Amino acid sequence: MAPTVTVGAYLARRLEQLGLTHLFGLPGDFNLALLDEVLGGSSLRWVGSSNELNAGYAADGHARLRRGPAALVTTFGVGELSAVNALAGSFAEDVPVVHVVGLPPTRAMADGALLHHSLADGDFGHFVRVAGEVCATAVVVRAQGACTAIDRALLTAVGSSKPVYLGIPADVAVAPVPAAPLERPLRVLHTDPAVAEDFRAALAEFLGDAPEVTVLAGPGLHRRQLEERVRAIAAQNGVRIATQSASKALLDESHPATLGVYAGRFTRDPETRRRVDEAAPLVLAGVVVTDFLTGSFTHGFDPDAAVDLHLDHARIAGAAFYGLYLEESLRILEEVLEVRTPRPGPLPRRAVTEVVPHVPAHPDGPLTHADLWPLLQDWLNPGTLLVAEAGTSFYGALEVTLPDGCDLLGQPVWSSIGYTLPATLGAMLAAPGRETVLVIGDGSAQLTIQELGRLLTLGLTPTVLLVNNSGYTVERAIRSPEAVYQDVVAWDWTKLPAALGAPGTPVFRAETPAQLVKVLHEVRADPDHAAFVELVLPRDDAPDSLVQLARSVR
Amino acid sequence: MAPTVTVGAYLARRLEQLGLTHLFGLPGDFNLALLDEVLGGSSLRWVGSSNELNAGYAADGHARLRRGPAALVTTFGVGELSAVNALAGSFAEDVPVVHVVGLPPTRAMADGALLHHSLADGDFGHFVRVAGEVCATAVVVRAQGACTAIDRALLTAVGSSKPVYLGIPADVAVAPVPAAPLERPLRVLHTDPAVAEDFRAALAEFLGDAPEVTVLAGPGLHRRQLEERVRAIAAQNGVRIATQSASKALLDESHPATLGVYAGRFTRDPETRRRVDEAAPLVLAGVVVTDFLTGSFTHGFDPDAAVDLHLDHARIAGAAFYGLYLEESLRILEEVLEVRTPRPGPLPRRAVTEVVPHVPAHPDGPLTHADLWPLLQDWLNPGTLLVAEAGTSFYGALEVTLPDGCDLLGQPVWSSIGYTLPATLGAMLAAPGRETVLVIGDGSAQLTIQELGRLLTLGLTPTVLLVNNSGYTVERAIRSPEAVYQDVVAWDWTKLPAALGAPGTPVFRAETPAQLVKVLHEVRADPDHAAFVELVLPRDDAPDSLVQLARSVR
Repeated sequence: MAPTVTVGAYLARRLEQLGLTHLFGLPGDFNLALLDEVLGGSSLRWVGSSNELNAGYAADGHARLRRGPAALVTTFGVGELSAVNALAGSFAEDVPVVHVVGLPPTRAMADGALLHHSLADGDFGHFVRVAGEVCATAVVVRAQGACTAIDRALLTAVGSSKPVYLGIPADVAVAPVPAAPLERPLRVLHTDPAVAEDFRAALAEFLGDAPEVTVLAGPGLHRRQLEERVRAIAAQNGVRIATQSASKALLDESHPATLGVYAGRFTRDPETRRRVDEAAPLVLAGVVVTDFLTGSFTHGFDPDAAVDLHLDHARIAGAAFYGLYLEESLRILEEVLEVRTPRPGPLPRRAVTEVVPHVPAHPDGPLTHADLWPLLQDWLNPGTLLVAEAGTSFYGALEVTLPDGCDLLGQPVWSSIGYTLPATLGAMLAAPGRETVLVIGDGSAQLTIQELGRLLTLGLTPTVLLVNNSGYTVERAIRSPEAVYQDVVAWDWTKLPAALGAPGTPVFRAETPAQLVKVLHEVRADPDHAAFVELVLPRDDAPDSLVQLARSVR
Repeated sequence: MAPTVTVGAYLARRLEQLGLTHLFGLPGDFNLALLDEVLGGSSLRWVGSSNELNAGYAADGHARLRRGPAALVTTFGVGELSAVNALAGSFAEDVPVVHVVGLPPTRAMADGALLHHSLADGDFGHFVRVAGEVCATAVVVRAQGACTAIDRALLTAVGSSKPVYLGIPADVAVAPVPAAPLERPLRVLHTDPAVAEDFRAALAEFLGDAPEVTVLAGPGLHRRQLEERVRAIAAQNGVRIATQSASKALLDESHPATLGVYAGRFTRDPETRRRVDEAAPLVLAGVVVTDFLTGSFTHGFDPDAAVDLHLDHARIAGAAFYGLYLEESLRILEEVLEVRTPRPGPLPRRAVTEVVPHVPAHPDGPLTHADLWPLLQDWLNPGTLLVAEAGTSFYGALEVTLPDGCDLLGQPVWSSIGYTLPATLGAMLAAPGRETVLVIGDGSAQLTIQELGRLLTLGLTPTVLLVNNSGYTVERAIRSPEAVYQDVVAWDWTKLPAALGAPGTPVFRAETPAQLVKVLHEVRADPDHAAFVELVLPRDDAPDSLVQLARSVR
């Protein structure tokens, strides 16, 4: 008889084959058997979260730093629905999260039994239809055909870089299926060679012998871990590279070919804006053209007149090449650039602004964003992962020139406040040992604060900078700053690490630039521990770029 | 020119006319203008929450205690999706919550602009379709026809006792609409008089001169505030009344006509089970027949052979009477019972078990559920609102004989852990001055702990009993108690009130029955303050009824 495995074990093996090492989520009565099957014989390490939204954010952050898929497991109805916001964020920002949900037994659902955790209307299709709105595919797995259903969903997740939903009934989780398909790992991101050749020819013709090629590098490149390829392209003569805010520092900000961050009229350096808007030819690589990333659609370039490399297809002046993945199109771009004749001459080196250590004008006055970010810039080590929450934190971080090897992790498209705290947990598990700094506002942190306990008790050593500015400063910047709905409860932030289970965490508080300098020094002196720092800022103080953004939203 | 109001102001006035006094939710960039319109000229009091799931739970708890609709406001995408779980719970348990969502401007949505907070795919219909799966109706309001759209949704919410979704684009929120409809408050719950007369005749015939009528009273009665009507029916000769666990103590548990809680084979008193299962005639009033409420469908009665009074229709032996609301069908039931000839004689008074003060066998041993609930029973005041979280808390509470005037608030159909903490906040705002006790487990409290800060800083005086039993005891009772996924981070619970902004809250801790007795005494001695009590219980200890339930789930 052919060997079998249970559906749960099959899924676990497929996830392992895709390189997954961790599994996020929460237990619930309809997923216990599934969890036992998935975790029982596999190397997957369970990472519990306090609630499902946080688990979804953690999985998303994990996938981003893994540069590959992540998975979370929740339970029917009460669990899965709390994660919908996180999955929608993964969809909006092209993050391949596999959401596995333990469902009631097949028979009970077919009979329309009035079970707890259901809407008590006999319809068990509500929640898979909800998932279908925010995932690339959403299926309920049957025992018959389970292997194919799972494989297809995983191929979709990787290929489209989008979340997928696998609902697995309790009986199906333990049902035996053939083990044979597991002998052949899934072949992902396979480009059609004929399309690739067509593309190469069209690209060579389009680029011609232009002495300058400008590349706008977007967050799609991170999703496929193409940072090295971008570096190789940047090393070619005649190439300049700007990034989007969602992929800031993808190319080191000291690199001679870098143009820094481009964001339409939000671009800080007018030279950068002009070079991208007027580029001919322009290559868009993994670029996203949403409002916040284009200065409210003030970008001056036309994607239909450019080379536009997407995660799973490419365009040249509008003509489409389907079946061509970003890793391949970017590889071809490098090759085409390399063999061009005549070889373009080197471009004049861009004058990189020397970073001069910041000296606060009023070291004992109130701490403001005008001092906070330059001081952080001076303090950050090369290679740091800087995680910045939507609002003052992300837009402040955009004003920092990051040391080489740094990454900025944020969520500028979906912009769901609270995201970064659990995302930092997931990210750090994917990049163990990497210095990680989270900057998050008080209003945002209140949404997902539970995960601070998990983050600080897993042996990780993040530096958490909590910007306490008494409420939703970003919303105040947009409208009605005095409105009652802008207030949050005033927490005693430095008491939280101990209350949430991490009493040994060093905690600090800074209300002035001088105190911040001192605190940052102390944090640096103790790299073996996490640190929690409350930064007290005036209620309405905001980085310039956020003020500008708020004006555009208004 | 006819007077106009903005759409936001129109909505506010309609909510006021329905008796609403509070508005729950969070701000976000697409609902700020809406919030200003709704709150600007109205008496509605804003109650912010730390996140949208909590806001949804708070609104649900508020509606339950108001015995009428409640409303929450969130923002497009990132806000509304976090509340979906709460709304689904409102649907499953027949709670009329109006979910108002601030959407991007109409034109931007029509154009498919790639806005932040969207899936960046140009489709702005995803989230209203999500809402449609968990609400009785989900609409996007246009300026043209806004009054009708809002009125229809509110009528649906009240009539069906289900949540509804109103998406209001930012431009529509401030658009002028005629004020004229506001002169006539919405006429809700209006029964068709012809149907009522048909029903009266059929009911009189069905009941005939039966000497005993047994009523099973379900949670639908709470939704329509029919407790007084039930008391009047209970006062009639020949009537016995059992309740469901979801409506425990709806009739005082010392009332001579009460049979206590009926739940199929989970019924504690075999006499109660027999009387309900064998009742002829049996009247089901606002009854829900889900798994947990029927002892896993072991109820012995047939709804199609009974009088079955639903929120918006009724059945007699299967024959349906549409357009007949529960308040009217119950009123008719009372009248029919009253005029019956011959009048039935009084039933023998049920022997009410004398409640003897509990004496723990081992006062200095570990505190267990076997002592916890009897000690609470002795301590509870008449009239208390007891809120009990899904899991050990709710099933422990079912073992308590509640003093007169007490209510038990839980969520036994949807059973989403974490629900009760924010729900207590909403409930207390609807019943100010009422003594309120929340019992919640550690695993559950971690999902929604943020709202403890709000609960303790609004001047309310709940007693919060936090059952710390080191994880998901209810799941451990079902399967794999040693599994890693059953663990939660060990928090330092008594530090939380101060950390979350309420440093003046008296905090207590009890590990033994003797300590619990002492703590309860101290809490009682200080009725002007809230109290936070950590109860330390063994990991796997559970009330009998939960063990039984877990077995049925397994």
